[in-house]
Amino acid sequence: MTTAPLRIGLIGQKFMGRAHSNALGQVERFFDLPRKPLAKVVCGRDAEELRAFAERWGWERHTTRWRDLVVDEELDLVDLVTPNHLHGVQAIELLKAGKHVACEKPLSHDIETAREMVRAAKQARGRSFVWFNYRRCPAVGFAWNLIQSGRIGRILHVRASYLQDWGGPETPMSWRFAKKTAGSGALGDLGAHSVDLARFLTGDEFTQIHGAHGKTFYPERPLAGAKKKVGRSNVDDAFAFIASMKGGALATFEASRVAGPHQNDNTIEINGELGSLRFCFEDMNRLQFCDAADGHREGGWRSVMCTSAGDHPYAENWWPDAHGLGYEHTFVNMLADIVCALGGREPKLPLPDFEDAYQTQRVLAAAQIAAKEGRAVKLSSVR
Amino acid sequence: MTTAPLRIGLIGQKFMGRAHSNALGQVERFFDLPRKPLAKVVCGRDAEELRAFAERWGWERHTTRWRDLVVDEELDLVDLVTPNHLHGVQAIELLKAGKHVACEKPLSHDIETAREMVRAAKQARGRSFVWFNYRRCPAVGFAWNLIQSGRIGRILHVRASYLQDWGGPETPMSWRFAKKTAGSGALGDLGAHSVDLARFLTGDEFTQIHGAHGKTFYPERPLAGAKKKVGRSNVDDAFAFIASMKGGALATFEASRVAGPHQNDNTIEINGELGSLRFCFEDMNRLQFCDAADGHREGGWRSVMCTSAGDHPYAENWWPDAHGLGYEHTFVNMLADIVCALGGREPKLPLPDFEDAYQTQRVLAAAQIAAKEGRAVKLSSVR
Amino acid sequence: MTTAPLRIGLIGQKFMGRAHSNALGQVERFFDLPRKPLAKVVCGRDAEELRAFAERWGWERHTTRWRDLVVDEELDLVDLVTPNHLHGVQAIELLKAGKHVACEKPLSHDIETAREMVRAAKQARGRSFVWFNYRRCPAVGFAWNLIQSGRIGRILHVRASYLQDWGGPETPMSWRFAKKTAGSGALGDLGAHSVDLARFLTGDEFTQIHGAHGKTFYPERPLAGAKKKVGRSNVDDAFAFIASMKGGALATFEASRVAGPHQNDNTIEINGELGSLRFCFEDMNRLQFCDAADGHREGGWRSVMCTSAGDHPYAENWWPDAHGLGYEHTFVNMLADIVCALGGREPKLPLPDFEDAYQTQRVLAAAQIAAKEGRAVKLSSVR
Amino acid sequence: MTTAPLRIGLIGQKFMGRAHSNALGQVERFFDLPRKPLAKVVCGRDAEELRAFAERWGWERHTTRWRDLVVDEELDLVDLVTPNHLHGVQAIELLKAGKHVACEKPLSHDIETAREMVRAAKQARGRSFVWFNYRRCPAVGFAWNLIQSGRIGRILHVRASYLQDWGGPETPMSWRFAKKTAGSGALGDLGAHSVDLARFLTGDEFTQIHGAHGKTFYPERPLAGAKKKVGRSNVDDAFAFIASMKGGALATFEASRVAGPHQNDNTIEINGELGSLRFCFEDMNRLQFCDAADGHREGGWRSVMCTSAGDHPYAENWWPDAHGLGYEHTFVNMLADIVCALGGREPKLPLPDFEDAYQTQRVLAAAQIAAKEGRAVKLSSVR
Repeated sequence: MTTAPLRIGLIGQKFMGRAHSNALGQVERFFDLPRKPLAKVVCGRDAEELRAFAERWGWERHTTRWRDLVVDEELDLVDLVTPNHLHGVQAIELLKAGKHVACEKPLSHDIETAREMVRAAKQARGRSFVWFNYRRCPAVGFAWNLIQSGRIGRILHVRASYLQDWGGPETPMSWRFAKKTAGSGALGDLGAHSVDLARFLTGDEFTQIHGAHGKTFYPERPLAGAKKKVGRSNVDDAFAFIASMKGGALATFEASRVAGPHQNDNTIEINGELGSLRFCFEDMNRLQFCDAADGHREGGWRSVMCTSAGDHPYAENWWPDAHGLGYEHTFVNMLADIVCALGGREPKLPLPDFEDAYQTQRVLAAAQIAAKEGRAVKLSSVR
Repeated sequence: MTTAPLRIGLIGQKFMGRAHSNALGQVERFFDLPRKPLAKVVCGRDAEELRAFAERWGWERHTTRWRDLVVDEELDLVDLVTPNHLHGVQAIELLKAGKHVACEKPLSHDIETAREMVRAAKQARGRSFVWFNYRRCPAVGFAWNLIQSGRIGRILHVRASYLQDWGGPETPMSWRFAKKTAGSGALGDLGAHSVDLARFLTGDEFTQIHGAHGKTFYPERPLAGAKKKVGRSNVDDAFAFIASMKGGALATFEASRVAGPHQNDNTIEINGELGSLRFCFEDMNRLQFCDAADGHREGGWRSVMCTSAGDHPYAENWWPDAHGLGYEHTFVNMLADIVCALGGREPKLPLPDFEDAYQTQRVLAAAQIAAKEGRAVKLSSVR
Repeated sequence: MTTAPLRIGLIGQKFMGRAHSNALGQVERFFDLPRKPLAKVVCGRDAEELRAFAERWGWERHTTRWRDLVVDEELDLVDLVTPNHLHGVQAIELLKAGKHVACEKPLSHDIETAREMVRAAKQARGRSFVWFNYRRCPAVGFAWNLIQSGRIGRILHVRASYLQDWGGPETPMSWRFAKKTAGSGALGDLGAHSVDLARFLTGDEFTQIHGAHGKTFYPERPLAGAKKKVGRSNVDDAFAFIASMKGGALATFEASRVAGPHQNDNTIEINGELGSLRFCFEDMNRLQFCDAADGHREGGWRSVMCTSAGDHPYAENWWPDAHGLGYEHTFVNMLADIVCALGGREPKLPLPDFEDAYQTQRVLAAAQIAAKEGRAVKLSSVR
Repeated sequence: MTTAPLRIGLIGQKFMGRAHSNALGQVERFFDLPRKPLAKVVCGRDAEELRAFAERWGWERHTTRWRDLVVDEELDLVDLVTPNHLHGVQAIELLKAGKHVACEKPLSHDIETAREMVRAAKQARGRSFVWFNYRRCPAVGFAWNLIQSGRIGRILHVRASYLQDWGGPETPMSWRFAKKTAGSGALGDLGAHSVDLARFLTGDEFTQIHGAHGKTFYPERPLAGAKKKVGRSNVDDAFAFIASMKGGALATFEASRVAGPHQNDNTIEINGELGSLRFCFEDMNRLQFCDAADGHREGGWRSVMCTSAGDHPYAENWWPDAHGLGYEHTFVNMLADIVCALGGREPKLPLPDFEDAYQTQRVLAAAQIAAKEGRAVKLSSVR
């Protein structure tokens, strides 16, 4: 395996561009890596903004044409933080050009494109990654460890909700509210994380969507900058579905952009025969764990602070116990794992590739069919 | 309206018989009532147990034949705490005999019987009541007050789950695990409370079940007393469904008997445009309330202790602020309201009658059809 | 030991009179007792109120002269819920007359009287009890069990606070705000419970008060019914002190009547070498327990619902798991234990007698001296 | 005011050296600053470690002689993260050499040295800063804003505890356990933060220590690397004291290194006549706020997520709402304010200088005297 520097390009420079650039700036400070990551080139649409962005975050070069990165001989890995409908075309071209690709979630805005992305990834020399960053909260990684080692036994329930509150009627129209660009609303934006966490933590796959429903509470939204005109939102502001998993678990999901006071409440609870786990991102440094063996006498949710070196994934890379981490650290942790994977080392936790993310996308697609057609949908029918 | 004593009979003497008898013993001590409730006669199947029960709880007489109560000229109100499949035959005969009937929830084990009960109640001289006791937690009543006065605005989300943990594979077979006697499992036992709370709090009705699913994790259960034989459970150990309400809310429901460490976790959250509410029975003296007007700057869940006389329903009947109440008080509060209603006074909060409980039953029935047939079901099709 | 009925008298009929009368009404319903408690006579100052009170709570007779109870041949046990300064004279006369006495806490308004009460109790035929009712929360009893069985090891910290919020400047003058009648303010009213819990749970005694301070934030209070006149409060609205215990623990205490939003927040936390415990009365059905053996990896506060029959004290007498109890149950539980003790049975948990409560009183007295004189005070100097 | 780059040196390279170096690496990415901070030189004792440290964190040069920094013409600001007893000699020489000095807390190991440091700071051209970093949690800053704007009114209670659990008997001897180097144990290490927060948030000063006590539970500790020998710890493992503030508040403090399961539980609660605030670092992104105007009916602790741009200090520099921050951000926020202060701009929140930190040190010193002498100590007597 090569130990050559890992030359990185980034397409996108908004919120996610910042989060990823920060990860790149921090990763070497907190992790010992097999390859040195280099911030080579960033691509964005607004040249002026882009210049400032590149300077602030230490990108060597910048361009407003994303295909420059496709043909750039100097790049090993390209990181995509563009709107969902662009993931496909960009990832496929990049993979064909031999790059490794790390793509923001969800994999794509529709299942067909996602399928093509998987095909391209299979045929490519480079590797693919998808930024399901919440896997990299130490508390989530620890939950994975507990489940892997059999601590909660056969899983009976998965209960996931991802609730935010920014989607009220005053929020202006954007690509996130258009099916064409986003594919779906809360479902793909938030529910995708929940489905990934459910699959990741249980190590299990979905077999059936028993029912689903989405609501567009606010079909009209103001156009930014325009006083009287309104834009048409045609995606779900909130979405819920019920599913079964192969191992038999009953799984429920809800995603919403209009569920205040939840602001970024990515919660998942898993009840097994031997124990239960509960994670809520708004209290991200803790895992709630119940060992059923404690019984009613001494048992209940244990509030575990997941910051102890040696005990909890990534904790040894950061600060002493209970000197908590924040949102941004999930990206640093994941980038460290990507660099490890590309340097021949095992990542600390499994990394989702396009194939993996495609399984999540199939669940979302099945849920959308179930909602549209008002019927149960078998996962085997969605490919 | 009469102010004559209210002569009460009770059919059933197990857990619920105890809870109701206690309510009868306590209600006059804490409430000033228009009629004096009298514990006249209790009916149960085990004569010996019954005698001790009657003595302990102050019942004047006891009998092992429930029809004795039907023909008992001395009774004004009969309280039914029998298994679900007996509610119908007993309530109908009692109503025909001119008694008031207070029936444990759910209304019945099937929708057909429930419908007949409603018909009987409509034709009867007596009044009907159904023991959806959780309405009578002061925190729930306060939530109702807040919603009634418009404090949370248009409702977007209802999110209800009722999770317990006693239904593991060692729990022996009983009427609660047989469709014939119970009608359903967690759905009718726990979900009925959730649906009632959703309807009560929102003042809204369901229009459609979008999907539903139940799981019988443990189809075989030990027979109490028998070493090798097993009983067949044919009801759901856990059940989930998704619904819409007339006002447009997306409503999700989950009930489980196998979701430890939740023991009696009857939780409902309602998100509106102007605010949100959250109640969890395991912390029953508090209501979580968010006034959206507080904004992100100063807002969030307010943890409101619902024990202040004048501020919170029933609080003035009990103890000083934060000298909390427990499970049993919900029954005392409800009995007080029943006695008030039968004495010509307004109850503090609306009381569910058979017609009201039938609307809840329709939701449960629609959810069962949706689960069985794997499709969305309109409430208008279930009558 | 006699199994004769236990004939009970009560002096006082306000808030505490209600709580104790309720306990008397309930205790036989939920406990199997060696003697039948009988509500014989209640004493209060307002004859009219008293008549209604007696009727409501089932007292056979009533009187406005407390000495009637001293000479009443028909009484076995007299329950005192009078203001603190009356405890002494009443208890001593009653004990001398051969009655058992159950006295509200604190033992008295001053240490001298308390000492005399102990002397009287030692010389008496009857037994003495003091209503430190919080010992009888199942969660507190369970904490005692855990500590007794060595589960938290050597105790390093006791941290107790009892915070309420009703003592603002609008609260009218009453006996509770006068040193003459109450002895102290928050210290004796609330801090007494904290000291009792600390002594009860640890099984340890205090050796020294290292420092103490009380504040009278509102020395002037309105006189009830009088518009312009003000009463002089000369007791502490808030009080704090630091102590050492024989076993070496550092113990801190704070009591306040002006610490909103705490309404009845009686909290105690104990940190030992092998584990920690935390109880808060505003969440009275739970105990927070940390087993240090769980380590940082899997450990943390366990939120234990203390309602399981067989597992938690008194739970078998009430309702199923997580069908919670309230404030009033602490009195029923304690009365059951008193009746057991007077019927020759072991109480479920140790009962505080005058001697025991006197040790608590010595701590309060030492804290008052420390506050007044601005110096450390050894417990051995306060007798 | 100059806009020249700010050339920075750092003395110390352990845990705190990392936290400060990280702040330096991040500050320009998230803040627009009047001067460009430059990482010029780092000083540590272990040359080999130091080289790696300097490389990892981007320090231009490194040295093992701290006086090199005193005479370094190229430095504007020197950051001290050395053991407490070195703060004085280093800060004084640096100030005399015209440097700005940012010193870790507490100001010094003893009050005499602290006084000299203040004198030096007053005579110096450079400015002084002390790293009371917890002021820079957005939730703490927001609490300060609320108090400043009168939202909680007259303050009655300050209740602070800083509890950790790493100080058990297996923890080896270090400078932190020796009075000579640390000055005190939990008091100066943890209590210093509590006292600073109390002073900062209330804007008030202490007038008297009413009592204090420290415990050395483990006077013997293993020597790192030595099997049989033990070191003598002569500092407090836990410390508590009670104080009054000028405005009349009763203030209680407790610090411990042996209070598991608390790991880094820096909690402060302030109760005022118009409201209350509560902050706990283990849930650092939230502030609990109670507006007394909400009353018992609708009021209680509001759980405020302090991450909204414009609403909460520093939030606009980081991530969207509820995409939480961690421990390290407190240092970045503070460094940004230091650079602003040195560039002629107002810091977002007041910065503690040596004079300010000296007031905190006086409180600690008075508490130590009170503990030693077993008596109340007026602050006016400690200078």
